[in-house]
Amino acid sequence: MLFHVTMDVNIPNDADPTAIDALKAKEKARAQELQHAGVWRHLWRVAGRYSNVSIFDVASNGELHDLLSTLPLFPYMEVRVTALCRHPSSIHDDR
Amino acid sequence: MLFHVTMDVNIPNDADPTAIDALKAKEKARAQELQHAGVWRHLWRVAGRYSNVSIFDVASNGELHDLLSTLPLFPYMEVRVTALCRHPSSIHDDR
Amino acid sequence: MLFHVTMDVNIPNDADPTAIDALKAKEKARAQELQHAGVWRHLWRVAGRYSNVSIFDVASNGELHDLLSTLPLFPYMEVRVTALCRHPSSIHDDR
Amino acid sequence: MLFHVTMDVNIPNDADPTAIDALKAKEKARAQELQHAGVWRHLWRVAGRYSNVSIFDVASNGELHDLLSTLPLFPYMEVRVTALCRHPSSIHDDR
Amino acid sequence: MLFHVTMDVNIPNDADPTAIDALKAKEKARAQELQHAGVWRHLWRVAGRYSNVSIFDVASNGELHDLLSTLPLFPYMEVRVTALCRHPSSIHDDR
Amino acid sequence: MLFHVTMDVNIPNDADPTAIDALKAKEKARAQELQHAGVWRHLWRVAGRYSNVSIFDVASNGELHDLLSTLPLFPYMEVRVTALCRHPSSIHDDR
Amino acid sequence: MLFHVTMDVNIPNDADPTAIDALKAKEKARAQELQHAGVWRHLWRVAGRYSNVSIFDVASNGELHDLLSTLPLFPYMEVRVTALCRHPSSIHDDR
Amino acid sequence: MLFHVTMDVNIPNDADPTAIDALKAKEKARAQELQHAGVWRHLWRVAGRYSNVSIFDVASNGELHDLLSTLPLFPYMEVRVTALCRHPSSIHDDR
Amino acid sequence: MLFHVTMDVNIPNDADPTAIDALKAKEKARAQELQHAGVWRHLWRVAGRYSNVSIFDVASNGELHDLLSTLPLFPYMEVRVTALCRHPSSIHDDR
Amino acid sequence: MLFHVTMDVNIPNDADPTAIDALKAKEKARAQELQHAGVWRHLWRVAGRYSNVSIFDVASNGELHDLLSTLPLFPYMEVRVTALCRHPSSIHDDR
Repeated sequence: MLFHVTMDVNIPNDADPTAIDALKAKEKARAQELQHAGVWRHLWRVAGRYSNVSIFDVASNGELHDLLSTLPLFPYMEVRVTALCRHPSSIHDDR
Repeated sequence: MLFHVTMDVNIPNDADPTAIDALKAKEKARAQELQHAGVWRHLWRVAGRYSNVSIFDVASNGELHDLLSTLPLFPYMEVRVTALCRHPSSIHDDR
Repeated sequence: MLFHVTMDVNIPNDADPTAIDALKAKEKARAQELQHAGVWRHLWRVAGRYSNVSIFDVASNGELHDLLSTLPLFPYMEVRVTALCRHPSSIHDDR
Repeated sequence: MLFHVTMDVNIPNDADPTAIDALKAKEKARAQELQHAGVWRHLWRVAGRYSNVSIFDVASNGELHDLLSTLPLFPYMEVRVTALCRHPSSIHDDR
Repeated sequence: MLFHVTMDVNIPNDADPTAIDALKAKEKARAQELQHAGVWRHLWRVAGRYSNVSIFDVASNGELHDLLSTLPLFPYMEVRVTALCRHPSSIHDDR
Repeated sequence: MLFHVTMDVNIPNDADPTAIDALKAKEKARAQELQHAGVWRHLWRVAGRYSNVSIFDVASNGELHDLLSTLPLFPYMEVRVTALCRHPSSIHDDR
Repeated sequence: MLFHVTMDVNIPNDADPTAIDALKAKEKARAQELQHAGVWRHLWRVAGRYSNVSIFDVASNGELHDLLSTLPLFPYMEVRVTALCRHPSSIHDDR
Repeated sequence: MLFHVTMDVNIPNDADPTAIDALKAKEKARAQELQHAGVWRHLWRVAGRYSNVSIFDVASNGELHDLLSTLPLFPYMEVRVTALCRHPSSIHDDR
Repeated sequence: MLFHVTMDVNIPNDADPTAIDALKAKEKARAQELQHAGVWRHLWRVAGRYSNVSIFDVASNGELHDLLSTLPLFPYMEVRVTALCRHPSSIHDDR
Repeated sequence: MLFHVTMDVNIPNDADPTAIDALKAKEKARAQELQHAGVWRHLWRVAGRYSNVSIFDVASNGELHDLLSTLPLFPYMEVRVTALCRHPSSIHDDR
């Protein structure tokens, strides 16, 4: 099941740079792990902003929440989730 | 180049059903044509709304506008465009 | 899987009353059918507005969309969908 | 009487973790106490956000306020309350 | 129990004046009836707008909805309801 | 002359509790003083929020501003003012 | 007493031009009458929009409402009213 | 003096096509006339929308309003004006 | 040329009171200087808020920016500028 | 390819002035470098705000993001990007 997720990252300017860099490294590793697993299907950067648009393919709302809420940078994120489904004009059957 | 496009379709309830059905058929044909051409990369339905989220892969802003503004249902659409680019954590090189 | 759905109904004042009453009757029948089927789990009226707050229990986003988009009054609705999942403090296991 | 309540929790990143964990534990205990009492009828997590959607069943607005404003995490919450009532298409008599 | 209700009235400019005047007369009669009954406690005009701010004193959300949704001008209203309760600094015990 | 005033109070979580409690006590005393004077006509709590809806009866905009801007908690308030006047359907002559 | 009033005029494109022109003429006459009376103190056009920003000097909220709600173009206006008072840094005593 | 102007054009779907086409032709002619005159400095299309972003170079607010409000399509436009001035980091002296 | 300017002042509660008082004194002196110069034509307080509505009479956008951006309290202000011009119904020729 | 970019700069009042001044100097140098390179085509100040409106001419979304996200003041910016393209009424062929 596909979910459209936008993540705006707001890291306070006075946050400890070392700690934040460590979090960013974990975030990247986790994001790549989930992409390889086919769960985080698409991850794009919004041009000009510290934001991304992502497409998740999960089995349930609960799985989506567990994935998002355990992202290292989650405490610094404003997240919006939109449930997607197959469009009648899509040339793909499964999406 | 990737663009994130949302299209909310608002067809007046008193519009001529026959004319609208004809437009919808053209819209579907055009959408599938562009998907097969690899331009309209992704087309998903927003669950619960007469809206879609799409990803377009075009060579320029101008090409994007020409594609969108000539869609049969364009006069009934509220369109929002967001420029995307490759995310540093993406496992794909080209997107 | 649970989805929180709000439906604001806006019926133009110059719509044909007879046609609208027929639609409303179909809407009520369909809503009760889905409630009996356990799909439309909760249906509440927002006090003071021609709006409802509902909880749907469906197997997928696609099923949710099919249910909502085929409601007789769907063309007159402004719908917002929010994906829900079990809260860690809930005393229920399944919701 | 039913009230729809959304609670967005915003805990500053520089808050004392120990104090916050203690508050969270109290919050969970209180939430479960009220659910067992049948007052906090439904408690769902919004997928992807530190937010919940809840349905309270109380005798008055005042009782609702007392319950919400004494929640341990209330100082960190953005709360929205919507008064609900029985929908004419509901198959239930009491809700 | 007190509810704060705002009602913005939007009557289309091309509506039949005679029919609207009749509705307005019914609306006034009903409003005065409910004020005399102590249910519609306060009714104020928002300066510069075809809107009012009202305070209703009702026994339940359901009663509030029944009163509002049967107002003659309800189909032309944008209504917002806010649940009120006694303020700890109020010098009145019952409100 | 009547004014509708909403006051949302936002006290930073890291504010000095003792100082804040002292301010709250002053605020309550001042509010009750103005209510007894018939200036602060109505003071209601918004259920679920650290907000109030109030009705002030003052001789001028200037008097309203002086009253509001000298409230002890004013620095922590988001205030919205709406000018009210007698509604043509009100059963009261003076309001 | 001063009030800041913005008026956005929205005349449907299919309105009868002759009737509208007549209304506009009455509006202009009334506006000039009130300016000469010193009630409509300032009337400015918002560059690029069919909107104005005005300052009214009236004795009460009620007087303001009576003036605004009887303007010929009132049915086509979106009006916002803000109560003003003398600024402590103003070099004028009365405003 | 430079002004940033956005124009969203909303032509009702049931407008007379012939009349609209005539207006569009006049609009184009006028726009090109003003560009040649150096007043309408920049005119860009917003990709995906029937909107433009323009930069006007005029001697006064009044001149700007006269130009915009006499555009043939002005009655169908939602216009927003932002006053610009030279940026301290601009490599140009006059803009 | 006239500009409508609103200034919402937000001074953090933990700012150094002495420094802020000094800034406020400078702000008042500067405001009165500009009013005497006829540049800051009108300065009104918004009742109930630490905000003002002002009318500036300047020769250019650039002059307006220089005046506003050098106000002592500018760093604590949320400013909105609206370009005004003479209204066709104004009884004044120059404004 | 042209992109319309607005940048609102919000520098916390308690930031280290020396560090910020250094950043501002770097920002100015970088902005002028990009203007000379023809990439940052237009840079205007929004009158009354610490904001700019800019037009970038870049080969791709990715290039735009790299330019914006590496601006020295980027961490203090709220950025909005709008994709532009040639307007059919433009007298210029390339923009």
